[in-house]
Amino acid sequence: MTDSAAMYEALTTSVRRLIDATIRTEVDIDTVAAMKAKIDEITEQLSANLMPGSFGERVVNDGQSPGSGNVVIGVRNPSAPPLTVHHDNGGAVWTECVLGAAYEGPPGHVHGGVSAMILDHVLGATAHKPGRPAYTGTLTLRYHRGTPLRHSLRADAWIDRVQGVKTFAAGKLSDGAGTTVSAEGVFIHPRR
Amino acid sequence: MTDSAAMYEALTTSVRRLIDATIRTEVDIDTVAAMKAKIDEITEQLSANLMPGSFGERVVNDGQSPGSGNVVIGVRNPSAPPLTVHHDNGGAVWTECVLGAAYEGPPGHVHGGVSAMILDHVLGATAHKPGRPAYTGTLTLRYHRGTPLRHSLRADAWIDRVQGVKTFAAGKLSDGAGTTVSAEGVFIHPRR
Repeated sequence: MTDSAAMYEALTTSVRRLIDATIRTEVDIDTVAAMKAKIDEITEQLSANLMPGSFGERVVNDGQSPGSGNVVIGVRNPSAPPLTVHHDNGGAVWTECVLGAAYEGPPGHVHGGVSAMILDHVLGATAHKPGRPAYTGTLTLRYHRGTPLRHSLRADAWIDRVQGVKTFAAGKLSDGAGTTVSAEGVFIHPRR
Repeated sequence: MTDSAAMYEALTTSVRRLIDATIRTEVDIDTVAAMKAKIDEITEQLSANLMPGSFGERVVNDGQSPGSGNVVIGVRNPSAPPLTVHHDNGGAVWTECVLGAAYEGPPGHVHGGVSAMILDHVLGATAHKPGRPAYTGTLTLRYHRGTPLRHSLRADAWIDRVQGVKTFAAGKLSDGAGTTVSAEGVFIHPRR
């Protein structure tokens, strides 16, 4: 990684911590107003040179991955956990994470839609080939119980079968006590 | 809304803009380093008084909704779009939004998992009753085509039928050209 890529990532990590503090702060209103003004100044300075559109549409080739802005894995997206997706030799995929206040749905629990997002990503990753992305065709989620915030979570996905351009994948999200959400999906490689 | 609630929301709106600038900035590395240092100072000041856990677990009764930290609708969550969910008289639910760089999956497009998150939320909202939340049992998503970033999107959900504690809901996400993702789900009111 280049020095500048590392510094952009460090900025992103700092903004990720700021998001958590913004949700959870109980400081007095005058401090909040002062911090808001400082943030607006920072945004203005960072905006002096903005890429058009989104990170994935960027055409500069400077070593930063086009996936850097991805909402699940993007190292330059402060809203992303960001997940690191691991592939094992048999085609299975897994990731581990701890999700904080920014991912809340029911009180103290991960939003069901965030669980869906993580499972969509890891199931889809079983079908991805370098230079040949796969797109979600269908995704079915079954919620067994609430997924807790601030606990170690793990998502696993594996290929059930491949038929032509379709990969049938399955997976689950789990905490220390077992599966919280299970999923099945069909991922499609567009014909070229 | 109280003055302090309004100021916390204004801070959140500013951090939401900062997220977009953080992803898209191309300013030089020295500026990035300087902005990172300023953000760390702001986070430290906001962290002088933090609620424990997450917003939904907060027990202070000062007029701020417990849903303020929600990742889909939370007005104090910079990672939330945040959606405003509308209910019509017939039990249907809808929302409109434009999603930017922070919600990217495939280049220039909304992550399939974000579409799932929005649909989970609006389908679930058809089943919610005041003081009586509903939890996702199952959710099935069908992706018709890519959902574009930076376009006006609308999500609609309606009740298909209710059987005891289960609400069977359906819905769709669409852009100006029609449906991009459709969904069906079962939402459950826990027995008291």
